[in-house]
Amino acid sequence: MTQNIYDTPDFFAGYSQLPRSVHGLDGAPEWPALRAMLPPLDGARMLDLGCGFGWYARWMRSQGAASVEGIDVSENMLARARELTQDPAITYRHDDLETAVLGEGAFDLAFSVLALHYIVDLAGLLGRIHAALAPGGRLVVHMEHPIFMAPSSPDFAKDNKGRRFWPLDRYLEEGPRTTDWLAPGVVKQHRMLSTTLNHVMDAGFALERVEEWRPTDAAIAQAPRMAAERDRPMFLFFAARR
Amino acid sequence: MTQNIYDTPDFFAGYSQLPRSVHGLDGAPEWPALRAMLPPLDGARMLDLGCGFGWYARWMRSQGAASVEGIDVSENMLARARELTQDPAITYRHDDLETAVLGEGAFDLAFSVLALHYIVDLAGLLGRIHAALAPGGRLVVHMEHPIFMAPSSPDFAKDNKGRRFWPLDRYLEEGPRTTDWLAPGVVKQHRMLSTTLNHVMDAGFALERVEEWRPTDAAIAQAPRMAAERDRPMFLFFAARR
Repeated sequence: MTQNIYDTPDFFAGYSQLPRSVHGLDGAPEWPALRAMLPPLDGARMLDLGCGFGWYARWMRSQGAASVEGIDVSENMLARARELTQDPAITYRHDDLETAVLGEGAFDLAFSVLALHYIVDLAGLLGRIHAALAPGGRLVVHMEHPIFMAPSSPDFAKDNKGRRFWPLDRYLEEGPRTTDWLAPGVVKQHRMLSTTLNHVMDAGFALERVEEWRPTDAAIAQAPRMAAERDRPMFLFFAARR
Repeated sequence: MTQNIYDTPDFFAGYSQLPRSVHGLDGAPEWPALRAMLPPLDGARMLDLGCGFGWYARWMRSQGAASVEGIDVSENMLARARELTQDPAITYRHDDLETAVLGEGAFDLAFSVLALHYIVDLAGLLGRIHAALAPGGRLVVHMEHPIFMAPSSPDFAKDNKGRRFWPLDRYLEEGPRTTDWLAPGVVKQHRMLSTTLNHVMDAGFALERVEEWRPTDAAIAQAPRMAAERDRPMFLFFAARR
């Protein structure tokens, strides 16, 4: 089963203070780029895999989605999501994406933010997502980029000329990566970008778009520390069609 | 126009001595993985974009391809290819892939090894390749991986624990990269992996497979220095269908 780090007290406390937890979508600098990958939402039945506090679920409904089913492994996050949601067309379910039953053909859009890099059996999950979508349904995923996840020492460093670099190693060695982020011992599953995309195609999806998120020039002008995000990608997005 | 570094005397002399130039496909450790991406070749009309010495063209014919048209910008390489080839079904053309006329629907397989990372107008070339293929025709590409191409200083380094790493930077800054390899001032065109794949899909292709080449355990046992190839990918392959 997937590690449920979100219900570790230190992790949950830290995560709850991130800008994206406090301010929702406006606190996520990559949101405009992700939003641009979404299909028309009007009337869509949506599945939110790793729904967290429900920010995306509520936004999807505000854009005309007919319903949203959010699934998350974290009871803490779901409790907060329920507090923040007054909408009977949004339902939340406590379940583990590694094994959750997703049904057959009942959704028009499967959406997932920052969850799939925790999944051990990604091929299995993608097969269940494919079956859960109606023909023509879409999958839109936002996940941690494998360049960000791969290294033994995943922090920027500087060379003897003072030039910042990302010390990439083990990119082609797939398997768990354990880091200390908000709490010790957070376990993620590293896969090459090609492996993830091949799993998507092998599940029966037609790949439509792949994005490696980079901040805009305007965003860097406002927050110069974001220039580092041009050195290595933190987020991978992709869109596919059943 | 594409830089024609292959006709620089130092570059050509150095390139001619690489194992893959001397021994052909057997000198390229990634060849078995690339071969596995090829469709059935029997009767196929093949276009080889950046054909070099013609090693792939001759192999394709040995596997039943009906014809091969090889295109290369290097007159030196084409002269050697013609010396090595006695087969009227293989033709060689001196042309620049940036602008070469590829015709309409006359090929079943477009194949390219270590050439597309030199192309400035990749979207334009992919559009011409798409038009040159018959419906159902395949595109199989082997090119330099953007992780390999991106850095300011594209060489392995070691940290203060003696651990080898690849100093990645500028991955999300697309544009020319100039390196000294066999000759000074070799110019390649860096694009993110996502950009290359989106160009393929935008040209009308259905993406079928993406591979980031890694040496097998057996290859590393034979040549331990190849273990470094697990730290960062050197080669990107992809297969797509018109």
